[in-house]
Order: sequence, then C-alpha cells, then structure tokens
Amino acid sequence: QVALLDVDICGPSIPKILGLEGEQQVHQSGSGWSPVYVEENLGVMSIGFLLNSPDDAVIWRGPKKNGMIKQFLRDVDWGEVDYLIVDTPPGTSDEHLSIVQYLSAARIDGVVVITTPQEVALQDVRKEINFCRKVKLPIIGVVENMSGFICPSCKNESLIFPPTTGGAEKMCKDLNIPLLGQVPLDPRIGKSCDEGKSLFSEAPDSPATVAYRNIIKMIVRDFKCTGQAQWSSCSSG
Amino acid sequence: QVALLDVDICGPSIPKILGLEGEQQVHQSGSGWSPVYVEENLGVMSIGFLLNSPDDAVIWRGPKKNGMIKQFLRDVDWGEVDYLIVDTPPGTSDEHLSIVQYLSAARIDGVVVITTPQEVALQDVRKEINFCRKVKLPIIGVVENMSGFICPSCKNESLIFPPTTGGAEKMCKDLNIPLLGQVPLDPRIGKSCDEGKSLFSEAPDSPATVAYRNIIKMIVRDFKCTGQAQWSSCSSG
Repeated sequence: QVALLDVDICGPSIPKILGLEGEQQVHQSGSGWSPVYVEENLGVMSIGFLLNSPDDAVIWRGPKKNGMIKQFLRDVDWGEVDYLIVDTPPGTSDEHLSIVQYLSAARIDGVVVITTPQEVALQDVRKEINFCRKVKLPIIGVVENMSGFICPSCKNESLIFPPTTGGAEKMCKDLNIPLLGQVPLDPRIGKSCDEGKSLFSEAPDSPATVAYRNIIKMIVRDFKCTGQAQWSSCSSG
Repeated sequence: QVALLDVDICGPSIPKILGLEGEQQVHQSGSGWSPVYVEENLGVMSIGFLLNSPDDAVIWRGPKKNGMIKQFLRDVDWGEVDYLIVDTPPGTSDEHLSIVQYLSAARIDGVVVITTPQEVALQDVRKEINFCRKVKLPIIGVVENMSGFICPSCKNESLIFPPTTGGAEKMCKDLNIPLLGQVPLDPRIGKSCDEGKSLFSEAPDSPATVAYRNIIKMIVRDFKCTGQAQWSSCSSG
C-alpha cells in the first residue's frame, strides 16, 4: 500500500502525470480528506486536486505552504500505508524543511536525489545532498535524468546536456553515494507524462523504461536487504 | 549600464554561467556591497558570491530569503543603471512576491517567461502568467526553450519534449501574449554554461545563438519603440 504526496505547492504536476487531472475526487469525510486512488494500492494527494482550474496560480509565501503540507500529513486519511513517497520541488527551503520537521518522529527512510548531467545542475544537487546531510536524512542514491539521446533515425548518441565535470557518476564517487541509474532522453517520456499514461505500458522495452526498472530494483533490493534504506550495508552484502 | 540580480537563493547558477565562480569580489564599502562586474557595463549580484564553497546549501525559509532579496536591492551599490534584470527561480512564491513588492515604487517594465514545449511545463507556466496578471506585471513575452533537437550526424530533427498541446505557440495565442522565440536543444549551450563562456563567441552561427539574437532584437525593439515593455502598442507599429 503506497501513498504519494506532491509537496510542490506552486507547480503540482503529479495529477497530470498520473492521469488524474479533472478527477478532483478529494472529499472531506469524518476521517479527513480522502486521497485520489490511481490503483487500489496507490493513493495520491496534491494541491492540484484542490484547484478550480489547473491554470490557477497558488500565490503563497512559505508559512502558508508549510500549513498546507502539515494538513496533507495530518488531515488526509491515508489509511494503512507501507510506504509514503514525497515528491518535492527543487531547493532546500520551506517544503524540504517542513517535511523533515513534520516527519521527524516517523523516521524518514531516505532520499532519492534526481539530477541531470551538467555541472550547473550538479552544483544545485550537491547543495541538496549537503542539506540531507545537515538534517541527517539518509541518501538512498542519485538518479541521473536526461543522460543522453539516441537519434531514432541514425542511432547516433548525442550528449545534449554534456557531463563536463563527469556527471552524476563522478559526483557520486566523490561524495560516496550510490548512483541508482541513468535515464536517457526519450520523447516518449514527455508524451506519457502529458497524457497521464505509464511509460511501462506505452513503451515497455524502451531504454528509458529499462533504466527505470533497474532503478526500482536497486531501491527495492536495498529495502528488502536491510529493512530500510541503508545502502552501504546492503551493497556489500 | 545593466545590473543582473540572481534571486534564486537556494540554487544560484548565474555566477557559474557567467564565468564568475571563485571571483567573490563582493566587498562591503561605505556605499554598500559592490556587485561583481562581467564587463564594465554589466554588474552582477548573487548569493553564490557570498558562499564559502559553491556546494554549500542555503537552508533558509521564506522570510530569510526575502530579507536577502531586500538587501540585494537596498544595500548593493549598483551605481547608475539603465536596466535591472532579475532572474527568478520557477514558482509563484516568496521570491516572486518579494521582488514585486520591493520594486513596486520603481515600476517593473515587464516579465519574460521561459517554458519548454510539454504540457506538464506549460501548466506551471500558465500559473506564472496568472500570477503576473494578478499582481499587474506586464508580460513582455514567452521564450520556448528546448524546442527540438537536430541530430549532428544525420540532421534529422527530434521533438524530444513533444508539444502535445501545441507548445508555447498555442499557449501564447490562447492567452494573447507574444511568443518571443524558440531556442533549440544544443549541447553547446550546456557546455558554454558549465564553462562560463558566452555561446555568442563559442558558437556564433549556431541555430540557438541565432534564436537568442532574434529574441533580444524583439525585446529591444519593443523597448525602443515605446520606451517601455508595452508589446501590443509596438507590434502593431
């Protein structure tokens, strides 16, 4: 049983990506707000479900965003869940501090950090890794997105976002963090997201899908191995 | 005389992109903090100049970010400037509200909105446009980034981020906003940014450079024509 919480308050994309747009099945009951279910075992909450139009701006400063995040954790009737996955916006500010603070008693298993290969992106991601270390969040690993592009007509690979300083691989080595995988650029990813469909059914054999599967395997293996996200004890086992 | 202010407090990339990293020439004088100069007529301020290491995380909630932005506007000795360009992070939260609030007396000429072609991105950008309208900021126009990719070996174009709902062009038509231009994907863009070099000197004839030049022409023509960013009165003239 999995719960997915979108804490990108000003730019919620989870409803569209999961094909839940316009559903707005969030209703208040005696036991709280109910999540929207993609599948029986996957409930989702996002501020996107609470907007009248998907184009409405959420013009909120930090304290109001924090209040919403608290409500999502306290007032949503998540039921019994095995995993809560929280999707955050980039940065090291209110959303991140609030999630860490409000879930401190629950013990967060770990963080999956997403980057792209260029140094400009890695620089921000190193800040996020430093944030995790400062607030004592375990890092499950790093995923490198937009890792390269294979031309569909000539099969030549282009590194559109060149890893001028070694990309995620070098950063992970330097910082002693696991690299979970590298996902190539593929127009089918953007198309699936826009259409709210799963790449796993739309393009089951694409290199991107294979990369996603391997990333999932690595994370799950880690959880199975140790009962929690302590990578180092797992990868050596 | 141009001033460039980076208000991405948690992810400042302007120092690296402009090749100013490690310069940290910001010093306090009697007249305030001095900006870092790329050229005689281009002064820059970013929190990146104030960090001990480029990897240091800035773990600040909204109010502290707002305080920094206020200091950047009030305590920096910008000198006499013709234009102040403010680079914001994505969203409609503290940074955006603070800039609008602190510069309200100065009258902001307008906003250039950056998007990519997919609906998932356009959805966030429509929120930003709604924000501009709510706080009465004129919109100079929209730039579509990552608009397509021409394979260097076979010259075939791939729409890697497919415009499933018509891209920026359709959005601009729907919202009656000028489309300033479309910048293609090109590995030389990322490489120039990482190396702090200008694409205008590194690849002066690349399609991306041509696109940037045309966008600049459109913005400048607008300013020349009306003395301010009132596109509608200009594009008809």
